[in-house]
Amino acid sequence: MKLVNILASGASAERLGSSNLPLGTMKKIKQNLRIIPLSGLGEVGRNMMLLEYGKAILIIDMGFRLPEEDMPGIDYIIPNVEYLKGKQKNILGIIFTHGHYDHIGALPYLIEWIWHPNLKIFASPLTRGIILKRQEDFPQLPKLEISKVKDGSVVKLGPFRVEFFRQNHNIPDNLGLFIQAPVGNILHTSDFKFDSYPVNDLPTNFQKLRKLGKRKILLMMSDSTGAEEEKHSLSEKIIEKNLEEIFKKAEGRIIAATFASLINRIQQIISLAEKYQRKVSLEGYSMKTNVEISKTLGYLKAKKETFINGKEILNYPDKNQVILCTGAQGEAEAVLMKITNREHRYLRIKKGDTVIFSSSVIPGNERTVQIMKDEILRQGAKIFHYKMMDIHAGGHAQKEELKEMIKIMRPKFFIPIHGQYSMLVSHAELAKEVGLPEKNIVIAENGQIINLNSKEIFIEREKIPANYVMVDGLGIGDVGEVVLRDRQMLAKDGMFVIVAVVDRQTGKVIGSPDIISRGFVYLRESKELLRETRKKVIGIVNLAAGSGGAVNWVFVKDEIRNKIGQFLFSRTQRRPIILPVVIEV
Amino acid sequence: MKLVNILASGASAERLGSSNLPLGTMKKIKQNLRIIPLSGLGEVGRNMMLLEYGKAILIIDMGFRLPEEDMPGIDYIIPNVEYLKGKQKNILGIIFTHGHYDHIGALPYLIEWIWHPNLKIFASPLTRGIILKRQEDFPQLPKLEISKVKDGSVVKLGPFRVEFFRQNHNIPDNLGLFIQAPVGNILHTSDFKFDSYPVNDLPTNFQKLRKLGKRKILLMMSDSTGAEEEKHSLSEKIIEKNLEEIFKKAEGRIIAATFASLINRIQQIISLAEKYQRKVSLEGYSMKTNVEISKTLGYLKAKKETFINGKEILNYPDKNQVILCTGAQGEAEAVLMKITNREHRYLRIKKGDTVIFSSSVIPGNERTVQIMKDEILRQGAKIFHYKMMDIHAGGHAQKEELKEMIKIMRPKFFIPIHGQYSMLVSHAELAKEVGLPEKNIVIAENGQIINLNSKEIFIEREKIPANYVMVDGLGIGDVGEVVLRDRQMLAKDGMFVIVAVVDRQTGKVIGSPDIISRGFVYLRESKELLRETRKKVIGIVNLAAGSGGAVNWVFVKDEIRNKIGQFLFSRTQRRPIILPVVIEV
Repeated sequence: MKLVNILASGASAERLGSSNLPLGTMKKIKQNLRIIPLSGLGEVGRNMMLLEYGKAILIIDMGFRLPEEDMPGIDYIIPNVEYLKGKQKNILGIIFTHGHYDHIGALPYLIEWIWHPNLKIFASPLTRGIILKRQEDFPQLPKLEISKVKDGSVVKLGPFRVEFFRQNHNIPDNLGLFIQAPVGNILHTSDFKFDSYPVNDLPTNFQKLRKLGKRKILLMMSDSTGAEEEKHSLSEKIIEKNLEEIFKKAEGRIIAATFASLINRIQQIISLAEKYQRKVSLEGYSMKTNVEISKTLGYLKAKKETFINGKEILNYPDKNQVILCTGAQGEAEAVLMKITNREHRYLRIKKGDTVIFSSSVIPGNERTVQIMKDEILRQGAKIFHYKMMDIHAGGHAQKEELKEMIKIMRPKFFIPIHGQYSMLVSHAELAKEVGLPEKNIVIAENGQIINLNSKEIFIEREKIPANYVMVDGLGIGDVGEVVLRDRQMLAKDGMFVIVAVVDRQTGKVIGSPDIISRGFVYLRESKELLRETRKKVIGIVNLAAGSGGAVNWVFVKDEIRNKIGQFLFSRTQRRPIILPVVIEV
Repeated sequence: MKLVNILASGASAERLGSSNLPLGTMKKIKQNLRIIPLSGLGEVGRNMMLLEYGKAILIIDMGFRLPEEDMPGIDYIIPNVEYLKGKQKNILGIIFTHGHYDHIGALPYLIEWIWHPNLKIFASPLTRGIILKRQEDFPQLPKLEISKVKDGSVVKLGPFRVEFFRQNHNIPDNLGLFIQAPVGNILHTSDFKFDSYPVNDLPTNFQKLRKLGKRKILLMMSDSTGAEEEKHSLSEKIIEKNLEEIFKKAEGRIIAATFASLINRIQQIISLAEKYQRKVSLEGYSMKTNVEISKTLGYLKAKKETFINGKEILNYPDKNQVILCTGAQGEAEAVLMKITNREHRYLRIKKGDTVIFSSSVIPGNERTVQIMKDEILRQGAKIFHYKMMDIHAGGHAQKEELKEMIKIMRPKFFIPIHGQYSMLVSHAELAKEVGLPEKNIVIAENGQIINLNSKEIFIEREKIPANYVMVDGLGIGDVGEVVLRDRQMLAKDGMFVIVAVVDRQTGKVIGSPDIISRGFVYLRESKELLRETRKKVIGIVNLAAGSGGAVNWVFVKDEIRNKIGQFLFSRTQRRPIILPVVIEV
């Protein structure tokens, strides 16, 4: 795999473009730009969008999301890229806005489908570092070449001229996109929030945003994740102040759990550790790698001697220790859960510990986090979490900021992106509040094709496939509705296999049928039920065979499934999956 | 089953007591009162507590809770009453504080275990009505006799004199308990909040509470459910005001979803419907029965003509309709979910509808509710939920109220009850804040035995069984760890049954092994994998049998399980449950 490694910055990058669709010709202006959200609309996570003009396709982000609760065994959900089948050669490039997995995570699963020798990939240095590090987990995939872009970089890709601009988020090096397309200018906010006093990052450059706003924006697509939250997101400055209060008062160890991707939060904790004479042990693979990447690329400042490797931290007095770890969401495999469950190799919660949960709780994880918190409290530690004081800020603009962004950019058309449907609706309301006409706002869904020209915006009648593609172990997309439904049924009432061996001559059951059951009843305490079931199975088979002539074994199996199903339900009010096996010998 | 039906009120009830343990004798005072929370501490729901003095046992509440996410197929979790085995005859009575299922729900599952002819049951009229209605779902159980008690009632049960006092909550007829025991006075708050402007209920009687507080309270046990929430719970007056705003503005139908047990909220919605010339259709079995009980007993005021039966409501103009239904939590079988999924017999969401979610979201249900909200919005309705405006108030005292309660009662000892462990800890902190000494506060857990006398409080070293007892269909307690773990494994990666028929003479596999798999891979697209698996199975069996001598079939099955497990994992990174069946013929 060979990728041209262009370092695009300013005008030099512009010259590298290979547009055969020059701007400004009437013929091209008449053509609509097609905006195709493959995913990320009506959901949080799995962001991937196509811009298609004529044949030219530009991809923005390739994220994954985590499965819903009713998808047992599934690792991730990735976008459906069926629409790109046969169009691979038209893909001019992929642009990554920032290094969070809901924007980059699907790349390793999809790259083989869409790759071609002229495909160009662009990302900021930190985003690029995270992507390349992750690719190492997929040694079978060829190495990617990714061009670095930064605030002010310009890249020309066919009919598109993309200008990158810095946006505050909770990871450094996040870039919004100002895209000049033949139909007009498009602004893509990326995930963002306004922060005038950020930590480890420059404050929001309102002057620059206003300049962009003056360049006649035909369409703005803006992050809706915070569109249901009132007012303004918290500044990282406040978070830092509150975290410092905890550091000041803590007399014992501090165990700080956060997302490994929250580089700025990690910086805050490391800085406080240094200020309060504490050493830091990094715990958790993703925490270690992300800190390593960020340090190497200069996005994280820390003294070398601050970090102590693993177990050695225990040689320091409690008041000089910080354990910085993953698992604030109660993830089963993460460090904090292992410590809590006394499964960690050398770390245990003890009286005097202060445990900081510096993250919000992702919907769906509340119970797990509650149970973990209870367990930590039982073991005698103190807990601080975001509901008790502001020690976590989300990365997403809230209502006031979103309105401000619309006012700054004054787009003609508006599409809320990134968020549950209710968030898109709320964001659309905000746009109306600041004066955009309702007809110029499009609430779109995954798989819809939005057409845009300088005069109008509309959604095509036909949709493209945009369903969930599930990753389970090595399988991508092989777990579908059928397998999932089976898993749900198996989970609910278990299964019940009946193996009957039948004499081919007499049609009678030989011996007693075997029964194998899991997840249904505790077999040792259900002997009577099993005995009755066996008797019924023998009855069903012998009746069918006794009628003489050729035995319809499909019918016999159906009979077993139905009658035994009814019988077991009448006794237990449970419906295990019943699987009859009839063997003729 | 025969129960004495005493209507206990004031002194008359007192005379009905049959104490053989007179108050005030030194011998008895020296004996400790044992307080045994069977459940409801360190969890929300499943409240059940024992007071044991000598042999005499008093039960307070018998609730159930809903299962955790990792308990597929489980209907409810109920208390473990093993401790009561053999002590049934010592149980003097059961007192129910109020009619919520986390206080009454386990009764039908447990009553047979603990019932004896002299057992007395006490509840307020509404609580009694709800309990008796529910018993009708269990026709095999004998009819219960429940004595009515109300604010001011006094009941004497062996060494205990129980005085009932009204407490505000979000269901009417909720009673706190002032219990005179030989060791001293015990105050049990029941679930409660302070509300000076409640709806459909009298305001909190602070004067009466202060009077109780002056009667030397040795121990207070107080509801901790709201102990992590700042300030004061919202008054129902505010909720009503906000709900009225919605009614004022709604031009189309109103679909209002709430808990069927929130009688006061239901009253608010019915009253508003009457005020704004709307008819009400009650949808959902529990909604209908609870309204029926409450109306019959006088706890719900509504004009007869307000209610319109089911489908007939559609004959009225949209602006004159209210659909009052269950399902605000996204419960799969409830009405709102059926309407949303277009599965309801005659109700569909349509443009112009206003959907009110008048309930908070129970932790664990967030995703389901989000997905339902999104779907309702897609169908064109407006949504109001508790995060947008105060249209729901919890039923539980928050920090300021809890402190106030402690200040009013000034107990010597304090046990926070009803709540997750973190809530108990938070409540204990509040008690310290208002001046209770730390040593007089006991954070207890289910199954611990707390000893109390006038001088001290302590927890016994030994615990009694207090684990989850799971109800699944007709089975109570028969689903244990093993079955549950199997269900979890089945859900994650499915199962894989291999049936090999072996020739007894040669030890060789006859034909090709049968494979039955569910929830693992989509079989139609995995033919190659299955072919290879069959080949491997034949190899394993033939190798074992080929060695000559008697074949150890247990060993062969283990080999199949292990080797095929490894093989499938190497190909898929999934670990289905593998179930080998070897049949010799």
